[in-house]
Amino acid sequence: MPKIVDHETRRREIVEASWRVIAAEGLAGLTLRKIAESADCTTGRLTHYFANREEIVLAALRAVYSAAKGRMARVHELDASPQAKLLASLDETLPLDYKRLLEWKVWIAFWSAAAANPSLAKENDKRLAAWAAVLVPLIVAAAPGSNAALEAEILVGLVDGVGLQAAINPTAKNKRRARATVAGYVADLTREGRTGSRPVALSGR
Amino acid sequence: MPKIVDHETRRREIVEASWRVIAAEGLAGLTLRKIAESADCTTGRLTHYFANREEIVLAALRAVYSAAKGRMARVHELDASPQAKLLASLDETLPLDYKRLLEWKVWIAFWSAAAANPSLAKENDKRLAAWAAVLVPLIVAAAPGSNAALEAEILVGLVDGVGLQAAINPTAKNKRRARATVAGYVADLTREGRTGSRPVALSGR
Repeated sequence: MPKIVDHETRRREIVEASWRVIAAEGLAGLTLRKIAESADCTTGRLTHYFANREEIVLAALRAVYSAAKGRMARVHELDASPQAKLLASLDETLPLDYKRLLEWKVWIAFWSAAAANPSLAKENDKRLAAWAAVLVPLIVAAAPGSNAALEAEILVGLVDGVGLQAAINPTAKNKRRARATVAGYVADLTREGRTGSRPVALSGR
Repeated sequence: MPKIVDHETRRREIVEASWRVIAAEGLAGLTLRKIAESADCTTGRLTHYFANREEIVLAALRAVYSAAKGRMARVHELDASPQAKLLASLDETLPLDYKRLLEWKVWIAFWSAAAANPSLAKENDKRLAAWAAVLVPLIVAAAPGSNAALEAEILVGLVDGVGLQAAINPTAKNKRRARATVAGYVADLTREGRTGSRPVALSGR
């Protein structure tokens, strides 16, 4: 009887192996040989599951995105204040532990490739728009008087920036600073007595 | 009589040629052959000016950093309000025209390499600390009641994040949004009647 291989499980293992290679060596170091080594299989086997390296890269990226999205969605189930939910949602996207750091390394590699590849660049715009859309209702609940569309843009930019900096050199100090910077911003956005909404309106994506 | 070659000029030409290659193909595509092509010389000639590819990468990065620093320093000479000076300083670091976009492409390539290279990662921390230090006096002047150290961290993160997003897909819309997001943040930070300073203190770098 032939060995039964669960196609999805095997694909998932290959994707996770590629995360580890990207985290250690960047996207430039992601070769089929290294993925195979990390997944403990032959390079020939990889081609049963993915047509080429580019397909593995995209699958790795989508898996990272969907993992972060799942964690963000669970924030709604928390028994917490709207401010705590907003902050928890942002925390899920900061590189504060090994798993999230690995995700950031994949993002950094992806951005580097996207900067020279228009179709990946468009994929990045979609990700940002989807992320901002997830944040808007959290912001509306946590800071009802604010310009939620603008605040979502600011938070998406801020988390991408401070997360990037912490992911590049993930020392305890840098991770602490990333979180303190985002928390400081959210505390100001959501505090009582904050006067008026931010003055600049943004058009939609 | 031998041809007189201005060493610094030639190095500068090679650095600018490497910017163009990085912008077009990412750091992974930066080969000595392509730099030589873009600089219109032989690869042998490159080694008169740089020991290896890594040295060219670092020189390219430092030249980008020093160009942005020079533009930021000139902001102090402007006959403008403290708020306008702060915004002008941030504008100098956003990818709003070809020159600054090229600089961003070099940054993105650098970050990708730094994520897998501890000494480049430390270089990035230094850059961030120096940039925050440049912003602090501008923030103190534009928003005297604010926590300038925290605001500098927020602005450095925000500009890195929204600049990154716009540099990856530099459409007119994305560039406009990047600038509107940063301007919206600065307008709120510096507006009259803003109550109190942000509540979370940050320790120094």
